[in-house]
Amino acid sequence: MAEPVLSPQEEGKRAAGEAAAALVEDGMRLGLGTGSTVRWVLEALGRRIRDEGLRITGIPTSEQTAARARELGIPLTDFAATEALDLCIDGADEVERGTLRLIKGLGGALLREKIVAEAAGRFVAVVDASKIVEMLGVKAPLPVEVTEFGWESTARRLAALGGSPVLRRRDGAVLRTDGGNLILDCAGFAPIRDPLGLQRELKTIAGVVETGLFLAGAEQAIVGGADGGVEVLRRA
Amino acid sequence: MAEPVLSPQEEGKRAAGEAAAALVEDGMRLGLGTGSTVRWVLEALGRRIRDEGLRITGIPTSEQTAARARELGIPLTDFAATEALDLCIDGADEVERGTLRLIKGLGGALLREKIVAEAAGRFVAVVDASKIVEMLGVKAPLPVEVTEFGWESTARRLAALGGSPVLRRRDGAVLRTDGGNLILDCAGFAPIRDPLGLQRELKTIAGVVETGLFLAGAEQAIVGGADGGVEVLRRA
Repeated sequence: MAEPVLSPQEEGKRAAGEAAAALVEDGMRLGLGTGSTVRWVLEALGRRIRDEGLRITGIPTSEQTAARARELGIPLTDFAATEALDLCIDGADEVERGTLRLIKGLGGALLREKIVAEAAGRFVAVVDASKIVEMLGVKAPLPVEVTEFGWESTARRLAALGGSPVLRRRDGAVLRTDGGNLILDCAGFAPIRDPLGLQRELKTIAGVVETGLFLAGAEQAIVGGADGGVEVLRRA
Repeated sequence: MAEPVLSPQEEGKRAAGEAAAALVEDGMRLGLGTGSTVRWVLEALGRRIRDEGLRITGIPTSEQTAARARELGIPLTDFAATEALDLCIDGADEVERGTLRLIKGLGGALLREKIVAEAAGRFVAVVDASKIVEMLGVKAPLPVEVTEFGWESTARRLAALGGSPVLRRRDGAVLRTDGGNLILDCAGFAPIRDPLGLQRELKTIAGVVETGLFLAGAEQAIVGGADGGVEVLRRA
């Protein structure tokens, strides 16, 4: 059976995902991200388990990733059984060149992604070339995860800071995260010249559970090109 | 029918609650806290509505307060209908003399209490005399509300900061907040000499939704004595 032809962007995602999966070593405890590029990481890990007998365990960042991992035979664990993770592989909506700071959360799993990322010693971002930016905030609004209780009040406070918050919907209904929270997409903070200051300001607001700013920065970003090649960016 | 005899501590709670309810003016939009002292505030407000025709609306900080307010005929609203609050009345587990900074959350509603408090222009704390402290943290552990996902990892990070976190249970079962989160009681941070620094440090941890530190400080603390009298503390 011939493989389906992929779009150039999808070719890039596949290339990045497969390169990241190749970094995984026997015995590793992994954080498994969420999204369209991570799906290619999962495919490749499933293949390595079948073909090479690779032994790994993973903590998934979403129900979606958990379901796909089970289908592919990737053993899952949780934080009750696992103290620390060796490596977290996840996508990103923006990667800032040089710092490798990220914006995440367009997929709606930002809080879990951040908890898993912080539990891992190393973080590798897998993206296609369209995600690389010179300054955060220029391509995508900043997602801010908020509690449902009082979200209108929280939104007014984000608006007062210039964030222009918009409640995220999907298929017409208000989107709810795996944790039962809501997401306010804030386009108004861009370009984000002082991400550390913004993060501190946002997190002091009661009702803000987490933001899409990942400021520790990735160790490396694996960037898939439309030609199926990959470029590896490292933190400057 | 004779009124039941109250314990001296309960007399203090009643005195404080009734004095706070006397501050409420016609037309006010109130934040209604949670707990054993706030119950006396609600009783007194219900009486003023019946006897004086006082017109108020309230946003409750818990299902428990919402249920009691309905029984007493106190009209409730929410943040969709109400932009700002005039006054929030709530209890506290500790009130620091001078700063009127608070620790809250022993009742389990800390996140909602904080969202409502921050939406109000003025905050009045109602407590009995046993809650006044010279430095926060000396009487009660600091409650930290965390997401269920990854709570074990979050607990390890709090432990690394010296917090000695203990998962809160009630009647043998793990306690879940109205928002579906868990509470880790951290006795190890006491005495809290730098509450602003601690708050900033805790809130940078993904998975920490909120802490019991209320650092804006109350405008006044109404302290009920065992003799049924009240003392009013103001911010220094």
